[in-house]
Amino acid sequence: MDDLFVVIIAGGSGTRFWPASRVSRPKQLLPLGGIDEPLLAATVRRVLPLTQPERVFIATGAHLVDATRAILPELPSENFLAEPAARNTAPCIGWSAHRILRVRPDAVVVVLPADHIIGDEVGFRAALTEAARVAREGRIVTIGLTPTRPETGYGYIEVGAPLSTEPRADGSENQTFSVVRFVEKPPLATAQAYLAGGKHVWNGGMFIFRADRMTEALAKHTPELSAMLTKLDEAADRGDEAAAVEELFPAAPSISIDYAVMEREPGLAVVRGDFGWSDVGSWESAWELSPKDPTNNAAPDHAVLEDASGNLVHDLRTDGRTRVVALLGVHDLVVVETDDALLVMPRHRAQDVRAVVETLKTKGTPHV
Amino acid sequence: MDDLFVVIIAGGSGTRFWPASRVSRPKQLLPLGGIDEPLLAATVRRVLPLTQPERVFIATGAHLVDATRAILPELPSENFLAEPAARNTAPCIGWSAHRILRVRPDAVVVVLPADHIIGDEVGFRAALTEAARVAREGRIVTIGLTPTRPETGYGYIEVGAPLSTEPRADGSENQTFSVVRFVEKPPLATAQAYLAGGKHVWNGGMFIFRADRMTEALAKHTPELSAMLTKLDEAADRGDEAAAVEELFPAAPSISIDYAVMEREPGLAVVRGDFGWSDVGSWESAWELSPKDPTNNAAPDHAVLEDASGNLVHDLRTDGRTRVVALLGVHDLVVVETDDALLVMPRHRAQDVRAVVETLKTKGTPHV
Repeated sequence: MDDLFVVIIAGGSGTRFWPASRVSRPKQLLPLGGIDEPLLAATVRRVLPLTQPERVFIATGAHLVDATRAILPELPSENFLAEPAARNTAPCIGWSAHRILRVRPDAVVVVLPADHIIGDEVGFRAALTEAARVAREGRIVTIGLTPTRPETGYGYIEVGAPLSTEPRADGSENQTFSVVRFVEKPPLATAQAYLAGGKHVWNGGMFIFRADRMTEALAKHTPELSAMLTKLDEAADRGDEAAAVEELFPAAPSISIDYAVMEREPGLAVVRGDFGWSDVGSWESAWELSPKDPTNNAAPDHAVLEDASGNLVHDLRTDGRTRVVALLGVHDLVVVETDDALLVMPRHRAQDVRAVVETLKTKGTPHV
Repeated sequence: MDDLFVVIIAGGSGTRFWPASRVSRPKQLLPLGGIDEPLLAATVRRVLPLTQPERVFIATGAHLVDATRAILPELPSENFLAEPAARNTAPCIGWSAHRILRVRPDAVVVVLPADHIIGDEVGFRAALTEAARVAREGRIVTIGLTPTRPETGYGYIEVGAPLSTEPRADGSENQTFSVVRFVEKPPLATAQAYLAGGKHVWNGGMFIFRADRMTEALAKHTPELSAMLTKLDEAADRGDEAAAVEELFPAAPSISIDYAVMEREPGLAVVRGDFGWSDVGSWESAWELSPKDPTNNAAPDHAVLEDASGNLVHDLRTDGRTRVVALLGVHDLVVVETDDALLVMPRHRAQDVRAVVETLKTKGTPHV
């Protein structure tokens, strides 16, 4: 449908995948989890069967625009929304909705994170198509992912009554439900109860809505933000949007779309999705998603592995020199090389990479 | 004494310290074990208080001469003896003895391996001085190192009756004994008995002798080799030594000085040495010898160590770029970086580095 617009949220601080990710090269600009293109490029490629490059927008930090444009040459230059300061998701989603509304009053907007991996792309697009259908009727829709573990790092959505059941091409169904409520990251016991109960799904940060419905919801729940966005519209009418963004955006409230709208708006819908989703949250997750040899090493061809198992070797050097990486007698390690850094740690310590980044910041080195 | 000449044996195949060591860059050309100069440079520096650069000779492979000269600019160019083929120690020691004898009929020659570390350099030189004194009297002398473990990788020397006791400057004594016999690498039970018995010392490959006594001994025990060396003398008289070496040396018997002379010659003497000797036989040994932080990491200043202990980090890259090495939650690892290779292994697997080199040879890569 030619009313479908996509907004990809591509910010990020670049700490969890250090040394591959940096402040100037966050996760979505990297190939991770066994794919050979940057996660953002894969995200765009994945939705292009549903829309056109002209209707795909990328919201990113001003300092990341050049690097982001470089990996997406197929998108129009003006479709990159440069946030002069990070203000969480509500301001940039609001800005996108206002901007799209100016060119297409009945636009349906799909908001997607830039840095996730989807195993079943056909199923993913089918879920989005169903969500867009429901959104066209006026609801704000989210995708709920079937939990596979009692994850405490995600928000959850409590699922209510079915709203519709649409058959998919493969015979399965896309089930759309009402939303009882959005729940922020739960403690472990609660997450375990959610997993056992079957009434909760993961909030993967994917939202689908008519642009006019989102601007109305923002006006209702966050009038301060909405007023700023209206000023951007007025500046755009004067041909002066960039300067207005530079001036006004940093003063916007830093607030997530979940908190600003989803936790407050009635009548939300959730499409249950089961399409091999991962947010690739750590090096451990990257290893899980990568192709592996018979002893569970995920390593490039030039690695020499002697009595080594369960290791992730990631070579992101750009100097083009062939370099042997030899692992002898080591197991379940992460070994990541870039031009200016090397990280060695056990896979199960992946969550602690931030500690290394913090140490480097304290030292004032240029490697963060 | 101006009769003292030093011959440093600097060959090596470059496998035990891969990826730092290579066929073209064996161990003696590397800084290892916590010293900041190549082991060979340290070996030369260590003996210079006893002699002059003009009397220090380096016996090395022809393919290593340029790299070896480069780190020893203070030695005369003609003091590098280039072996066109590796023929073990007897031919190159014999060649050295013949060559020195031509310029100094009463020369005393000290033969030293190029790639060992000495903790107490004053004690080391005192032992060499005592050995030279005994050698001047006509004996072939070796240095016997007090064993500290039942090592099965070294040859041993059984010590006989005392020959002399010389006081040292610090009040201790250099004790010189007759040699009962040289013993090749023993099985573990034998090595344990040697350690307990106190009558055996390690053969560290250091030999001290009058050049004329060594040429006589070679003539007696290995007439074939001796005949070749005499031909080199004749060629040298004609100003044609290099061509003769090229032609004759590869046909020499490949035989160690231990087997050719030490195990057969009567009247040998051994000076017991106790001066913090190590042959730096592996990455494990290099870690033992290196300065370490409070959690036993031997690592350069630019390493970031978070909950890491007992690791050896060796950065031998030559591109001059600063590179962070971050170890998080790992213990007792060896991490070695060069321009074209990275090795990660547990310290206790250091003896198995050869397996990696063998794999690389099989693959036909240029990284050996």
